[in-house]
Amino acid sequence: MSTQEIKVYKDLMGANEVWAAKTRELLAPNRVLMLNLIGSPGAGKTTLLERSVAQLKDRAAFAVLEGDVETTRDAERLAALDVPVSQLLSGGACHLEAKLVHHALQDFPVNQLDVVFVENVGNMVCPAEFDIGEQAKVAVLSVTEGEDKPLKYPLLFREAEAIVITKTDLLPHLNYDLAACREHIRQVHDGIPVFETSGTTGEGIDAWVDWVVQRRG
Amino acid sequence: MSTQEIKVYKDLMGANEVWAAKTRELLAPNRVLMLNLIGSPGAGKTTLLERSVAQLKDRAAFAVLEGDVETTRDAERLAALDVPVSQLLSGGACHLEAKLVHHALQDFPVNQLDVVFVENVGNMVCPAEFDIGEQAKVAVLSVTEGEDKPLKYPLLFREAEAIVITKTDLLPHLNYDLAACREHIRQVHDGIPVFETSGTTGEGIDAWVDWVVQRRG
Repeated sequence: MSTQEIKVYKDLMGANEVWAAKTRELLAPNRVLMLNLIGSPGAGKTTLLERSVAQLKDRAAFAVLEGDVETTRDAERLAALDVPVSQLLSGGACHLEAKLVHHALQDFPVNQLDVVFVENVGNMVCPAEFDIGEQAKVAVLSVTEGEDKPLKYPLLFREAEAIVITKTDLLPHLNYDLAACREHIRQVHDGIPVFETSGTTGEGIDAWVDWVVQRRG
Repeated sequence: MSTQEIKVYKDLMGANEVWAAKTRELLAPNRVLMLNLIGSPGAGKTTLLERSVAQLKDRAAFAVLEGDVETTRDAERLAALDVPVSQLLSGGACHLEAKLVHHALQDFPVNQLDVVFVENVGNMVCPAEFDIGEQAKVAVLSVTEGEDKPLKYPLLFREAEAIVITKTDLLPHLNYDLAACREHIRQVHDGIPVFETSGTTGEGIDAWVDWVVQRRG
């Protein structure tokens, strides 16, 4: 009988998972909550962050990473509000990768932060498949996109811990059935918190910000 | 001096390009125009097709391929209008591939068609990178998505032969600068035809349908 020790290789992580794990290690000592905001182009992710800033600034120390294929337009919008922000350019890619997020985080004073918001590249499919080291994914969905998106892009809505519905001020001008949207959400992720918000009127932003603060704990 | 003939391998096509080329060969004998419609989830691609059907049905024989990650909802909308339609499910993928399109086309009476519309998976990034054998890509962009998308997702707008702006009926309710959007389009693709349309009022659908008919020639 051989006494040779058999080596077992298991759970060999890909490069993306390695960087995501490093990010969790970086953020853990200060219990920094990192949220990964995912939604279509034009869903209102940047506007949601702009409106959240005013309500969050006395309750938590935070920073923002803005993901885009090209341009620094979104980061400039947040910088105008004196928010610590960096722009992550995906270089043509359809999602953010964990390595880029990790390197950008290291330029923030991480030990002084409570919350980091990451706005992913505008896309409902690919960003839902890549762990960037976040504590939770948040799906952002505008009422102008129609009621059926939770059924058509179920991975995002299953992976998310919260859903923010945006642009509710436009409901009087749309043929949109909010109850049907809620039922579609229930079918793919029963019980998930859903926030109905408007960046124009400010509706629902307070409840969403309360959730962020409580999620950090 | 050696007389050995040096073999040169060049332009070895990937599987996707092979299927795209097969599709062009399939469509060429009848000069079938295949258009690849690309835009965000909820940009209004299916509604654009619904509205185009009424104006196009006496001018051309056409069929529709509806791409989605999951569900047959969009195909059912077109089938309700007695349009020959099939649903292509990407199986979680963020774009349609040429092989699936080719196989679906073979179930249509291709030699009796003038135009095939393909609605790609809702996504501004990945579908712009994959040739599915179309004659032209068309970018579909709703006014609710903001003016800056041509700058942020430039590949799609560079690759497209036409741009359809949708949901113009909502302009009175939005803080949206159509002139700025047009300027951003000019920066990435000067001279491209742009159609401003509304599925609700019907505005601009006739000009878009005229373009389709003329593009087929």
